[in-house]
Amino acid sequence: MSVPMATKTKVTTSKKFIKPSFSSLIEKKRDSGEFSDEEMRYVVDSILDKEIPEYQLAALVMAIYFQGMSAQETAVFTEEMMISGEVVDLSSISIPKVDRYCVGGVGDKSTLILAALAASCGVVVPCMVNSREEFVISTQDKLSAIPGFKAKSSIKEFVSQLKKIHCAIYEQAPEVTPVDTILNTLRQETATIPSLPLITGSILSKKLAEGAESLVVDVKWGNGSVIKELEQAKQLARSITRVARSMNRRCVALVTDMNQPIGDSVGTGLEVKEALLVLQGKGPEDLNELVLKMGMEMIRLAGVAGSTLSAKQTILRHIKDGSALEKFKQMICAQGGNTDFIDDPELLPKAAYCRKLPAPKRGYVHTINAGMLARGVHILALNKDGSLDPSAGITEIKKVGIQVKQGESLMMIHYNDESRLEAALELLKNAYRLAPKRPTPLKLIVERVA
Amino acid sequence: MSVPMATKTKVTTSKKFIKPSFSSLIEKKRDSGEFSDEEMRYVVDSILDKEIPEYQLAALVMAIYFQGMSAQETAVFTEEMMISGEVVDLSSISIPKVDRYCVGGVGDKSTLILAALAASCGVVVPCMVNSREEFVISTQDKLSAIPGFKAKSSIKEFVSQLKKIHCAIYEQAPEVTPVDTILNTLRQETATIPSLPLITGSILSKKLAEGAESLVVDVKWGNGSVIKELEQAKQLARSITRVARSMNRRCVALVTDMNQPIGDSVGTGLEVKEALLVLQGKGPEDLNELVLKMGMEMIRLAGVAGSTLSAKQTILRHIKDGSALEKFKQMICAQGGNTDFIDDPELLPKAAYCRKLPAPKRGYVHTINAGMLARGVHILALNKDGSLDPSAGITEIKKVGIQVKQGESLMMIHYNDESRLEAALELLKNAYRLAPKRPTPLKLIVERVA
Repeated sequence: MSVPMATKTKVTTSKKFIKPSFSSLIEKKRDSGEFSDEEMRYVVDSILDKEIPEYQLAALVMAIYFQGMSAQETAVFTEEMMISGEVVDLSSISIPKVDRYCVGGVGDKSTLILAALAASCGVVVPCMVNSREEFVISTQDKLSAIPGFKAKSSIKEFVSQLKKIHCAIYEQAPEVTPVDTILNTLRQETATIPSLPLITGSILSKKLAEGAESLVVDVKWGNGSVIKELEQAKQLARSITRVARSMNRRCVALVTDMNQPIGDSVGTGLEVKEALLVLQGKGPEDLNELVLKMGMEMIRLAGVAGSTLSAKQTILRHIKDGSALEKFKQMICAQGGNTDFIDDPELLPKAAYCRKLPAPKRGYVHTINAGMLARGVHILALNKDGSLDPSAGITEIKKVGIQVKQGESLMMIHYNDESRLEAALELLKNAYRLAPKRPTPLKLIVERVA
Repeated sequence: MSVPMATKTKVTTSKKFIKPSFSSLIEKKRDSGEFSDEEMRYVVDSILDKEIPEYQLAALVMAIYFQGMSAQETAVFTEEMMISGEVVDLSSISIPKVDRYCVGGVGDKSTLILAALAASCGVVVPCMVNSREEFVISTQDKLSAIPGFKAKSSIKEFVSQLKKIHCAIYEQAPEVTPVDTILNTLRQETATIPSLPLITGSILSKKLAEGAESLVVDVKWGNGSVIKELEQAKQLARSITRVARSMNRRCVALVTDMNQPIGDSVGTGLEVKEALLVLQGKGPEDLNELVLKMGMEMIRLAGVAGSTLSAKQTILRHIKDGSALEKFKQMICAQGGNTDFIDDPELLPKAAYCRKLPAPKRGYVHTINAGMLARGVHILALNKDGSLDPSAGITEIKKVGIQVKQGESLMMIHYNDESRLEAALELLKNAYRLAPKRPTPLKLIVERVA
């Protein structure tokens, strides 16, 4: 079912390798030296075995932040992280396995949709999620709005569900890429998250360890993403695809816009509702497009569709004939969730209050600070125990380029706790900039890197 | 006698300062931001109170390695480090207090000489030493060759000795600059020693905390120093004098050559012997010059001499009339050492074996790798318990520019353990490069920065 750690140790000890001191390795990286394959493996092994003290690891990671890693270093780092824990073995399933990874974005519910949609088209989608990026609502958070939905599973259950219904969305199992888990915790505390080779290694090692053969990555850039600069997003897309290629995995990355929310709603339950709309062919335009483009890449990598045109037709057909929605229902059911809401979305939790946010003046929506919107929603929804209120959030979001009259609604605000409204309103209001002139439209898919 | 830590806390809490998270401080420095005075003080306080986890401190220090610190940051850092522990109060002594600091160099025994020499000229020299730089023999190591010599003292004893005889060389008391001690240990393990602002803060905070009002610094550059590049040495000299000035302390730095040993001998007891020669006016030329120039700066800073000429005359007179040697004897005696060796240097420990290192061919000594020589001596002298054999080392070192015949001695090697000779010889031989042409002479004092 899963490959134990033994494979790794063999590789490391097959050559005569004299262990260098950690301080000499830090010095090498500090002076922009390149680690040999053995040295890179030794570093990852030492993290796993807790042989490298945390302070030396922190210094090394900061040196990597400044000096980067070569393509070869990143590839070995990724490979070694991947096999630092259990690697899910899906070889007993003959259907191609393709996953997607999205850099967290505001309002992005595409993961929920794509898992079911691609599976309905004949792809196995082994999806483990774990991204918790500050204010961004994670896929786990969204799924938690569905009564009874089970987010955790053993690797055995994960594989068994994939065999049966071809898709699964679970929290990352703790046995998978433990080194990545250690490193991420350290990086969050030491201001070393934004390092392209480290992000590359983190994403790819996790995705490949969960059993995916090929991968489609959505690299979001903008004020609602951790990646603020377009150039950085492009570099990350290139880094991920290059390293995946060097590991003999097929990988396509799309660089997409995250300077406004994706779709018209933000909030856990509200986003599940919108995901249903997309699966019913009634989703908002931008979300539809993102799902279509990501889905097309997934089924092309899987070999299900031979051409762009046939990929598009396949995706649209599986939405139109209801099989994508049916697959979604199967997945929710398999993971213990109550599926009644799929036929009647009104059964999803509803907030006690709903009010509009009026435009302070007439004009075009010129810019939206998506990060600020997300923070506003976070204030509305965050419960004292750290969970998110499934009914709180915003809908009917007026997007960039839309013209509004003074007093017209910029969004509907759903909330249960009036005491939080004021602080949230401050952020939601300030996220909007209205201007008399129509702004340049935002391009959703900026670049495709293969 | 000594100022407790309270003074510091007052400064920090006198303003309303909202403590930032350590990760936000790391991020700021990572992005080359400048810490406010409060932030800098908060960092140093958090190190002292062990509130900042070691891994965050390591990441911060590596970020400082790459991004540096401004003059203002370095000054506040130095000041706060200085008052992080006890500051020796010498205000009860009315004579000017001037110390010297030497970046460790091979064969440099000037500290032993200067403490007594400057004191004999009418300066108080409050000298605490603690530099342990890899292969370089420290002042403590040298003094340990004197039977009975006591290297540790309380601050009370230190002050009392200074009152009586005006000079003292003790190991740094643990109460002095504890933050520097913590930082140095961390920096050695994380390849962050070579950071100019951190070195500046480390040197100045220690020297000013031991009670010195003014300071003369010898910044050595070359293959026998931790500072390999001349440009770096110049930068460090400027950094130290600038920060000292901003703290209202008088400071002069000399940038000096360390591309061959200073003097003609390397080894703990052998260097004590050579120090005696200088105090008797019979020292080797380069060491004499270094001591003269450093001593002149010290007594000029103290105001003992008004002009360069009178400073020179004062130094030479106190050597000639034996008062410097007498002061040295007083210091050794005050610190419990047996002073018989001063009248009869033959009483110092003698090695069982002594042999010459023959020149492999005729020619001029073109270059000497002083670091390699030091490592050779280290092999000869290092005992299993980590102490150094007081009689082992090298003497009669042929310096750069000297012409030798084939087979003529390049140095005399003193040793007790034949089994170590081969490995040591390898290094001692390889440290020498002979060439047919006379090399450009090395300039001992490269620059004076005031």
